[in-house]
Amino acid sequence: MAKLRLIPLGGMGNVTQNMYVYEYGDEILIVDCGIGFPDVYMPGVDSLIPDISYLQKQLAAGKKIMGLVLSHGHDDHIGALPYILPDLPNFPIYASSLTAGFANQRITDKGFERTITVLKDRVPVKIGSVFQAMTIAMTHSVPDTKHVVIDTPEGLIYHGSDFKLDPAPVDGVLPDFAAVEQLGKQGVLLMLIDCLRIERTEPVASESKVGPVLQQLMAEAQGKFVVTLMSSHIHRIQQLVTVAEKFQRKIVLVGRSVEQNVRVSKELEKLTIPKDMLVDKKNLNDYRDDQLCVIVAGSQGQEGSSLVRAVFGEHRDLQLTQRDMVVFSADVIPGNEVPYFRAIDELARNEIEVIYPDINSGVHQSGHASAPEQMRLVNLVKPKYIMPIGGADRHRALFRRKVMAELKFADENVLLPKMGEVLELAQTRASIAETISIIPRVVDGLGIGDVGPVVLSDRLSLSQAGMVVIVIPRQDGELQLRKLEVISRGFVFMKHADEVITFIKERSIEIIQQLDAKIKDEELKRTLERRLARRLYKVIQREPVIVVTILDL
Amino acid sequence: MAKLRLIPLGGMGNVTQNMYVYEYGDEILIVDCGIGFPDVYMPGVDSLIPDISYLQKQLAAGKKIMGLVLSHGHDDHIGALPYILPDLPNFPIYASSLTAGFANQRITDKGFERTITVLKDRVPVKIGSVFQAMTIAMTHSVPDTKHVVIDTPEGLIYHGSDFKLDPAPVDGVLPDFAAVEQLGKQGVLLMLIDCLRIERTEPVASESKVGPVLQQLMAEAQGKFVVTLMSSHIHRIQQLVTVAEKFQRKIVLVGRSVEQNVRVSKELEKLTIPKDMLVDKKNLNDYRDDQLCVIVAGSQGQEGSSLVRAVFGEHRDLQLTQRDMVVFSADVIPGNEVPYFRAIDELARNEIEVIYPDINSGVHQSGHASAPEQMRLVNLVKPKYIMPIGGADRHRALFRRKVMAELKFADENVLLPKMGEVLELAQTRASIAETISIIPRVVDGLGIGDVGPVVLSDRLSLSQAGMVVIVIPRQDGELQLRKLEVISRGFVFMKHADEVITFIKERSIEIIQQLDAKIKDEELKRTLERRLARRLYKVIQREPVIVVTILDL
Repeated sequence: MAKLRLIPLGGMGNVTQNMYVYEYGDEILIVDCGIGFPDVYMPGVDSLIPDISYLQKQLAAGKKIMGLVLSHGHDDHIGALPYILPDLPNFPIYASSLTAGFANQRITDKGFERTITVLKDRVPVKIGSVFQAMTIAMTHSVPDTKHVVIDTPEGLIYHGSDFKLDPAPVDGVLPDFAAVEQLGKQGVLLMLIDCLRIERTEPVASESKVGPVLQQLMAEAQGKFVVTLMSSHIHRIQQLVTVAEKFQRKIVLVGRSVEQNVRVSKELEKLTIPKDMLVDKKNLNDYRDDQLCVIVAGSQGQEGSSLVRAVFGEHRDLQLTQRDMVVFSADVIPGNEVPYFRAIDELARNEIEVIYPDINSGVHQSGHASAPEQMRLVNLVKPKYIMPIGGADRHRALFRRKVMAELKFADENVLLPKMGEVLELAQTRASIAETISIIPRVVDGLGIGDVGPVVLSDRLSLSQAGMVVIVIPRQDGELQLRKLEVISRGFVFMKHADEVITFIKERSIEIIQQLDAKIKDEELKRTLERRLARRLYKVIQREPVIVVTILDL
Repeated sequence: MAKLRLIPLGGMGNVTQNMYVYEYGDEILIVDCGIGFPDVYMPGVDSLIPDISYLQKQLAAGKKIMGLVLSHGHDDHIGALPYILPDLPNFPIYASSLTAGFANQRITDKGFERTITVLKDRVPVKIGSVFQAMTIAMTHSVPDTKHVVIDTPEGLIYHGSDFKLDPAPVDGVLPDFAAVEQLGKQGVLLMLIDCLRIERTEPVASESKVGPVLQQLMAEAQGKFVVTLMSSHIHRIQQLVTVAEKFQRKIVLVGRSVEQNVRVSKELEKLTIPKDMLVDKKNLNDYRDDQLCVIVAGSQGQEGSSLVRAVFGEHRDLQLTQRDMVVFSADVIPGNEVPYFRAIDELARNEIEVIYPDINSGVHQSGHASAPEQMRLVNLVKPKYIMPIGGADRHRALFRRKVMAELKFADENVLLPKMGEVLELAQTRASIAETISIIPRVVDGLGIGDVGPVVLSDRLSLSQAGMVVIVIPRQDGELQLRKLEVISRGFVFMKHADEVITFIKERSIEIIQQLDAKIKDEELKRTLERRLARRLYKVIQREPVIVVTILDL
């Protein structure tokens, strides 16, 4: 007998890297395909992508992917498409207009093409023989955000990814409360809901409140008005355009992501910029500073971003002066505090006025619903089962507490699957059917690999205490200990680093001489690495990565 | 003619690493001697200490350190003593009772002894022939915090390091407003003032507001009540003791820093714990969970801390269960978000109730004054010149704006020296006399060295892309290219890592063969490193640290 299963491939308790697999019988429907952002414990990693080995196993067993629906155009929901689509057979992809535009951009950037079908809100589309999907209008920090309603043989699923309930959205497209209420009346089996800001008890303000704040600031700006923001925040950009028009400032876009997203949004008529208002960054110097509103990528202070290069005086086109005003129209994402505040401090040090949410909370409004709005939406949808998504484990735990206390959900109706747990859903029960292994994969330069193996832990060790390589030449079967060579990098700060190297050489020779002459190479290497590490720790209280190699001649 | 000079050795725009040198003629007075905390760009570094090469130069020129005054017992004000005192001649050290206790602890921990003279508030002490110093009572997040008033031939200096204006301090010792007002009447030449929380416009609540919140939580706790906090926060601990007594819970201390600070504070009668209330962590299991209040070190989620070991089930004495409640009675310090929330998420994942400021703001109150209190204190002291300290550059810039707007200071009377700038002060003018080089030093295991050399940048590069070592044996003057060996760590994620290593080998040989046979070793190494890096980047889009070494046999 066929069963309805739900498998979160991005892993639960992760805010990003969204990818949800719905399965019924032999048919599979996927919602979203996003990247994750590496934290400080993953140095050098560009991004994380969901582990699709479960999907590949199911395909091998004869199951079929009938379609993929994208909820909105943020990279943690669409950014993994270029990495994952090539590894899967073809299937239809569905999205709203702007989401399709952004997704297509990601895909063509990697050199291939896919057709994405644009969905009309409230119009269900058949996906395979068992699923039917329908989008409904929602508000968030990127236009054309949708919630996805999935009709399954077991009942309706409300897939409520990232959202806020904006009472006055910039494009006038309100959350579709009528459709939501209608669903509530029909009866919803399971609701997934964005719980990221469950800690906040005050409702989040409308995005349209940001425009007047920017206007007030622009009125004070003597030189260039420079704003950095999330480059997909098209409604924020639209408001900036409106304000800039009032002050007769031209719009200059700086940074690939901003330029690309604006181009796509304009083409799809999700953003309106009067023709003569847009000035190419190359021509920035044709205008007086007080005639310019510059929108620049890098709102998290990312190293190498256009903003950071401008802040540190390294940008070819954008130079900042003490008459300019720089506005961080974005909150810092936890984990990015060091580079974010480093950029702000550098501006302050150079006596350039810098405005950021800590000193003017009006320059940014979140795109995520707070606790009261989350409860409000749950109350409209009235699902039997509820599952918080898009938050960390602390947010999911708090969501459970709130929904039980305020909306009288029973414990067993609040689903908090752990990483790898496969949910089985029926009208009368929800349970964990099995636990699969999920190992997110990392994108690292041109390489893609599994998280877990030794590379990352080596990098962390290397960053803490550097590396020591010991090369032992061997000739005619004899180790040439007098020729033993020590190479190190990132190792000791001591004035007497040379003495430490000599210490390593002498101890290495000593340790090897104590070993059985017949010892196998691998054992010699491991033993030397281990014993040397111990002796070295006593001298420097550090554990560098030690690598011993025997060089046969 | 003698002049009054002020040299911030910890560097300006740093929140931590406080060390201020006052100089008049041949005499020097120092205030504070603290460590700095490394950020993510300084992997593996334990702490930063002020650069005293300027002091050493002055000593060599015949000047003399007449004394050192410590403002309060936090490590960013006293923690560098054990590293710096051994490099300087002996001089008197002055502090309040608890500050002296904590400082002595740091010093004896490193195996030496120094006498610290305990100052009585409002009683000036002569320091050398020109300076006179006096402490006045202030409030902060460690008891016995003082502001230091320095009488100089040019006028009074109000050295107002870390403080809040607590209207109801736990120990009843209020900020000494009478003394401050008296100074204002006398006339103060220069005021230094803690500006860390200038962004906040709401006054900070009294520390004594935290006790009732902890009491409310303890009333709900079923199992152990586990609190993590800054281990020097003796007033917070005192409140916990009072609350625990009401619920007949014993106090258990876990973590070296908490145990040490409590011992010192008890000895100095700055903390009262009824004799039979204190239970050794080894005897924790002799009590029922609901009889225990555990105070544990690690409130920033520091790796290896007692809290983190307990959270991840790796602590010998402290095991957590689902009936326990864990309270983070501390804000996250910017830069620590990842480990801090990782610990909270792990507790949530294990269904252990965890309370932290984001969901209950009452479990912590800051020890730093907000903008209105800063303005209030400035208004009482009424200095001619004002200099914000203890904040980052963004805080200093905002402080200047506020003090000019609200208290009508003239721009030239607000001093914001940059790193290394030496201030010269007179009754009628303040100016930058010279700029010295300040290079903070790093403590790294047992090694101490200058920030700046290649070690840190190597570590960062290693963490991003690992390391590749190429060993070229040479025999009888001939490079043995067929025996060339490649060793790597933390390098590529690719499935085909072996192919990348082969690529490196082949390209290396190719590059060397193209070189002039008479090339010098160093040039060969540099050329190979450079050319190989370029070719490798095309294949993996990464820049590992490449080290070429020639092994002579």
